This record gives sequence, structure tokens and C-alpha cells, in this order.
Amino acid sequence: MQHIVVAGAGLVGSLWATLLGSKGYKVTVVERRPDMRKANIPAGRSINLALSDRGWWALELCNLKEEVKSFAIPMFVRTMHDKQGNLTRQPYGRENEAIYSVSRGALNKLLLSKAETDPDIEFRFSERITQLDIENKILHLKNEETGNESALHYDVLFGCDGAYSAVRHRLQFTDRFTYSQTYIDHGYKELNMLPDAEGKHKMDVNTLHIWPRGEFMMIALPNPDGTFTCTLFLGWEGNPSFTNLNTESEVQSFFEEYFPDLIPLIPDYKEQFFQNPSSSLMMVKCKPWNHGKNIQLLGDAAHAIVPFYGQGMNAGFEDCSILYNMLEEHQWDFETVLPAFSKSHQADGEAIADLAMRNFVEMRDLTADPEFLFRKKVERLAHESFPEKWVPLYSMVTFSHTPYHVAKKEGEKQDEIMHDVLNKTFRIGNTDEQYALEILKNNLGN
Amino acid sequence: MQHIVVAGAGLVGSLWATLLGSKGYKVTVVERRPDMRKANIPAGRSINLALSDRGWWALELCNLKEEVKSFAIPMFVRTMHDKQGNLTRQPYGRENEAIYSVSRGALNKLLLSKAETDPDIEFRFSERITQLDIENKILHLKNEETGNESALHYDVLFGCDGAYSAVRHRLQFTDRFTYSQTYIDHGYKELNMLPDAEGKHKMDVNTLHIWPRGEFMMIALPNPDGTFTCTLFLGWEGNPSFTNLNTESEVQSFFEEYFPDLIPLIPDYKEQFFQNPSSSLMMVKCKPWNHGKNIQLLGDAAHAIVPFYGQGMNAGFEDCSILYNMLEEHQWDFETVLPAFSKSHQADGEAIADLAMRNFVEMRDLTADPEFLFRKKVERLAHESFPEKWVPLYSMVTFSHTPYHVAKKEGEKQDEIMHDVLNKTFRIGNTDEQYALEILKNNLGN
Repeated sequence: MQHIVVAGAGLVGSLWATLLGSKGYKVTVVERRPDMRKANIPAGRSINLALSDRGWWALELCNLKEEVKSFAIPMFVRTMHDKQGNLTRQPYGRENEAIYSVSRGALNKLLLSKAETDPDIEFRFSERITQLDIENKILHLKNEETGNESALHYDVLFGCDGAYSAVRHRLQFTDRFTYSQTYIDHGYKELNMLPDAEGKHKMDVNTLHIWPRGEFMMIALPNPDGTFTCTLFLGWEGNPSFTNLNTESEVQSFFEEYFPDLIPLIPDYKEQFFQNPSSSLMMVKCKPWNHGKNIQLLGDAAHAIVPFYGQGMNAGFEDCSILYNMLEEHQWDFETVLPAFSKSHQADGEAIADLAMRNFVEMRDLTADPEFLFRKKVERLAHESFPEKWVPLYSMVTFSHTPYHVAKKEGEKQDEIMHDVLNKTFRIGNTDEQYALEILKNNLGN
Repeated sequence: MQHIVVAGAGLVGSLWATLLGSKGYKVTVVERRPDMRKANIPAGRSINLALSDRGWWALELCNLKEEVKSFAIPMFVRTMHDKQGNLTRQPYGRENEAIYSVSRGALNKLLLSKAETDPDIEFRFSERITQLDIENKILHLKNEETGNESALHYDVLFGCDGAYSAVRHRLQFTDRFTYSQTYIDHGYKELNMLPDAEGKHKMDVNTLHIWPRGEFMMIALPNPDGTFTCTLFLGWEGNPSFTNLNTESEVQSFFEEYFPDLIPLIPDYKEQFFQNPSSSLMMVKCKPWNHGKNIQLLGDAAHAIVPFYGQGMNAGFEDCSILYNMLEEHQWDFETVLPAFSKSHQADGEAIADLAMRNFVEMRDLTADPEFLFRKKVERLAHESFPEKWVPLYSMVTFSHTPYHVAKKEGEKQDEIMHDVLNKTFRIGNTDEQYALEILKNNLGN
């Protein structure tokens, strides 16, 4: 049987190793960092993860759904905070449809421990890839603790090693490999909101909180320990920007103007602002995702995206589910499946990258816009009234397995239809949702 | 005085070293390949170079203009070959304006020898960069012949190491470095046309020959030894394509249909077709081109482009001229100049990349189009009649130092005007050039 090497023991790497192990493959997972379960290291900079249907699908394949549910917090609605502290709530989908706040660290540790129960899966931590010899199918490794160098042969290599993938990095030097890395003009900074005196969450818990402020925004996701992780997304340049907030009084004025309701909830916000790092946000696109039949990129290594659709991990997990199913269909013939997977799935990576970028504008700007809120209401009504004919873009992305590129295309059609609906209703002052629904129905043409 | 390291002893590296040396700097040039003057190695895959004004400007700074002129062949016109072998000629600019066919190898050797006459410039060949320690300003090198490893300190490092730059490659891992590499859908293959029995060129010599064929094309540039270098640009996929031309009879049919006049001129075209490699064409864009005050990318390392405007080397040489002049203005204060150069010149890199890609369509398709030829005639007439008000885009790019991004913008305005001119003349069957000129003049509005 073929020996498979998985580069990266992050979320995608450990999940994919589990799926390979379940088919009886001998799998070696090499990870640059120490074992996060033993070392006291942070699980990486992390915007809280919002687990949704594509992610659950893969967790179900590994029989981990129930266990993950036990520490995931469902968020059924978005709650928008305006500058006066007024709240507007908006369901994400239909009743009982939710996205789930999970801790990246907790999920990763669970996946590692699950994989490790399989004796065919071996983990090698603190091993840095120093060279990838594609011709001879050998990974050269250096142990970051001992300094020992070693070589590891693979039949098939999966690069699940994230946005800064060493495997992809080697592929960049192969002929006709298209690659781009782009940093957006915004960075982010996390602030931690502690529980109240009774250890409880200080804000509504089953919701994702947004402070949309046009060019920037704050969001907050609940954690099981009563805290919220708040994340400020703000430009590097301009006013206000990370570059322009240099003193405590500048930060205080900034919060007083834009986030006054957060000040009593995070009393040490000024200290945290200067203690916590500001991090940048990178997108990666590349093509092809495979190198012949022996190397395959998965997850962020193939398509790192911005976090604004909550789809980064979900897209990575979906890679695993789709690839698993394709391999099942073709008797685990990597030679046939790897090129086919890359070719057919490439457009989905492009689509979710674009959708995620576009959702940033929606979150930081439109969620405070009455027309947008009206549109959302009408769309929800349509989705409830004729669910086969109208599934809002957000629901297709979040609560279905519709390929991302199909969802994106469908979303563009919906934009056209809703443009007409809004012209004939909201924009002339008619906010009757039933009337809007009729126009929408007519536009669907059948 | 600061110690300067130049990575790359290609065209841009050796020219830039010469300019630095002329200001008294101690310069070390490290080059991965052996000295091309001693080793019998090809000068790299090379579409013939078409030297034009931006290139001459830099050569003048180095006092090399006359020497290069002695082996450069002026090409005053493009000569289009149709499928029947009929020829159409089109001047590139005004009388005496020409682009110059030069051998990459000969030019590079001259630049190396020129630089070496300066005792402050040291060349180290066969030295591969294994690591770039940005923090401590140290290049780690490994000699490809002896295996010796060494470390080289720099105060300022110039990455002139081409499209696959090792310096840029290290910058790719610095925060917020935007990078893309893109391969176009076409590749190229060179064929050599030998001289006739008397050792003379088989076709007109002071011209660039084009066989425009819509989706693909052949070009030919003269060499001083009586040969022509012919280059076929053809898609990787589709029909016809490199993938589809697999047998001698397929290649023969292809040439018989599209390039019949070349068959007697290159009798061994079939053998050459299978012996010579098919190579891919990559574009590189990145930002920023500098890393603080200590590292600067120049030439292809910063902006590798496709060869269709004949501007690759010219753009790299212009980097050197512009940077040299900016440094002169600011007393060689790298800290001030490097970020300013990158910031101000970035748009030019983007512009010439786009222009070069667009010129591919023009060369392979439009040069066979009567409307396009009429437009060119009218534009030339305008340029002659009122040269201050109308400089055709091609002339701005090729025969001026107008910044590329300004030329591109001006070209877009010209497209609008010529669209109107052609609507009122050629498209209604009126091919009176003087009449067209009047309309053009009116459109200029003054």
C-alpha cells in the first residue's frame, strides 16, 4: 500500500489524515510546530471559527460531529450595534439554522487526538520541511528541537500546511504554476471581553455581534468560558487606521465615537489595544492545486481567503469531503482523481475568495443600511415561501453544499432580480414585504 | 562608504553595478551561473532583444552607446507576411526611428567586461544564494562548483536576479508583500534561419518580420551573422497548439498552411521544431519593490513581463537610469530614495506589463487588419503634422521616456479619439487620410 505523507497537523491536515487512516493507509503527518496538546503554545492567531454545514459534513465523515457540538456555540442571528448602542437582529437562515462559534485550539486538539487513535497514523512534530525533492518523492526535514535532519519518502504528499505552505512554495518553481498572494488594506486586532461577576457572557450569547462602521468594523463571537473574542478590522492607512491610533487618548476617542457600548464591557480596552498585535490579512490563489498524481494541496495551502464569510476552515474541510468522495468513487486511484479534483474544484476556490472579500463590504457597511435589511427580509420570506426556487446566497454558502462557484453565479442572478424588486418597492417608499414578494415571484418567471 | 551587493550579473545587474562603481561604491556582484564569457553556456533562453530609447538612455549613462551600436541592427519597419507570402510594411516611428536587434549574450558580455574594468567592482560567479538574513543584512552563499559556503554582508542589496529572483523570493515572506506570477496560455519556440550561400540574410534585414495568424504568430529578428532568429508564439492547448503538433507531418501541414514562405527559407524546420524546446512565458508583479532602505528589486525581479512590446530589458535599464538620477538628486541617500523610487515607479511596472500583454493581440491579430493599418497611417500622419499634440502610443513607449503609466493613459484617450475618427471614415468606406486627419484634429479640441 502507498505511503502517504501529510504536511501540516492543523485543522485540515489532521482531519485529512484521519480520513486516509480510515481507509487503511499508512500516513505520516509532519508538522513544523510542537504538539499543541503538550506545548503551551497559542493555536495560532485566530479569528474565531464559525463552523457551518460544509465543515460539519467533514466532521461527520470522521464521526466527530456530536463531540464538536458539545463545545460549539450556535449563533442563529447577527446582532448589529449602532453608534447609540441600539441593536438590530437578523436571522442567518431559517429557524434552527445557525453558524457555530468554535475555538480553533479545541477543535484542532480534538482532531489530533482522534487521528492518533489510529495506529497507522504517525505524527512527527517540530519537523520543518527544508527541501522537497519532487523527482525522487522525498521530503527533507529538520527537527526544530534536536536539529536532526532526515529524509522521508512519500508516494503521495498532501500539502495541508496552510497559507504559508512549504509544499506550495516548492510548487511555485515548477513550470506554469500560477500563484498570487495579496494583502488587503485592512488588518485586525483581537480584544478579549471577560465574563461578568457571575461568570456569564456580558452580551447575548447565541449571536454574532457586529459593529458596522462603513470602512471598518468590530465583531464579537462567544466562547464557552463566558468570554467573547472581539475583533477589530481596520485599515492600515487613512483616518481612522491602525497607523493613526498611537496614544491612549486617540484610542479612547475612537472607542467613544464608534464603540461606546463596548467601553463598559471591556474596561481595559486601551491596554489591550496596545498589548495585542495588529495582524495582516492575506489571500492566496494558485493553480493547479496538484502536481501530477503525487502532490495535492488542500485547504489554506491551496486557497487562503479572508475571514469575512466564515468559510476558511469550512472550505478546507469541504476539500477533504469532496476529495474523499471522489476517491471512493474511483477506488482510491490518485492518478485519476487528483488532477480531476483540482480541475473541477479550482473555480470554487476562486469563488469563495471573491465572495469572502465581498462579504467584508456587506458586514462593515451594508448591515447598517435599511435597504439591505429590507432586502434580507424579503429574501428570507421568499426562501420560506418557495424554498426550491429561492435560496439566498448566504444560505447557499453557509447552509448547503452547493459548489461555491454555482452559488456565486446564482447570487449574481439574485442581485439582478432584487435590484428590480427594490426599485419597485423600497426605493419608492413601499416597504410592504408581501408586495415585494409578488414582484420577486414574477421575476422568477415560473 | 557603504558596501553594496548586487544579486545577478545579467543585463540589469551588470549595468547597475557599473553605475554604482562610477560613483565610487564598493560593489560585489554575486551570480548563480558561471561567467558566461568563460564557460560555454547559452546566454539563457532568449527572444531576441529589441533595444529602444529607454535602453539606450542607460547605455549612454555607462558610455556604451557607440559600442553597442556597432553590433545592433536597426529595424525601421515591421514587415507583415500574409499566408500567400505577400508583404506589408509599416514604419515603427518617424524617419530614422528604429528599434535595434541585439544579441542578449553579446550585450551581457560587453556589460560584464565594462563593469570589470572598475577595480571597485568584484564579481563572484557560480554563487547561489541559499539564505537572505534580512535582519542582519547577510547573504548566505554556496559555490556551485566548489560547494564552499560563505556569508556576505551588505549595506544595500540590489536584487537584479531576474524573473526567478532569489531576493524577491525571500521578500515574499515579509509582511504585506503582494506577489503574483502568471503564465500565459501561449508558449514559444525558436527556430534558426541560416544565411544564404553568400552568407547574407535571406530576408530584408532592417525590419522585424511578423506572420500574424490571429491566435498565434511567428516573428523573426535579424542577427549580425546573417541568420534570423524566428520565434513561434503558439498556445499550449487548442488547435493548432504545441500539444497538437506531435508528428512531422502535422508540423509540415501546419507550416504549409500558415507559413508557406518560411519553408524554403528554413529547410530543416521540422527537425528544429522537435529538437528545440518549447518554453513558457511568465509575468511577475510584486509590491513593494524595496524592503526599507536596504533592499531594492530592479528589472525582471520586480516586474517580469511578456516580450511582445520589446520592453523587458528596456524597462529594466530604465529602472537603473531613473534610480540613478533620483539618487543623484538626493546625494545618494538610499533611505530616502529607495522607498520613493518604488512608490513612484510601481505604476509604470504595472502599465508596461499590461501594455505588453495587449501588444500580443495587436501583433498576432491586428497587424493583418486593414482598419488597423489605416489607423496606423492616420496616426503617423498626425504625429508628423503636429508632433507636440499627437505621439502614437507605440512611439511614446518605444521612442520616448514618457513614464509607462502616463503613456498607457494617453493611449486610452487616443483609442477613444481614433474610434470616432474611424467611425467617420474607414467604417463608412472613406479612406481619405487627410480627411481623417481633420477629424482627428477637431477631436483634439485645440
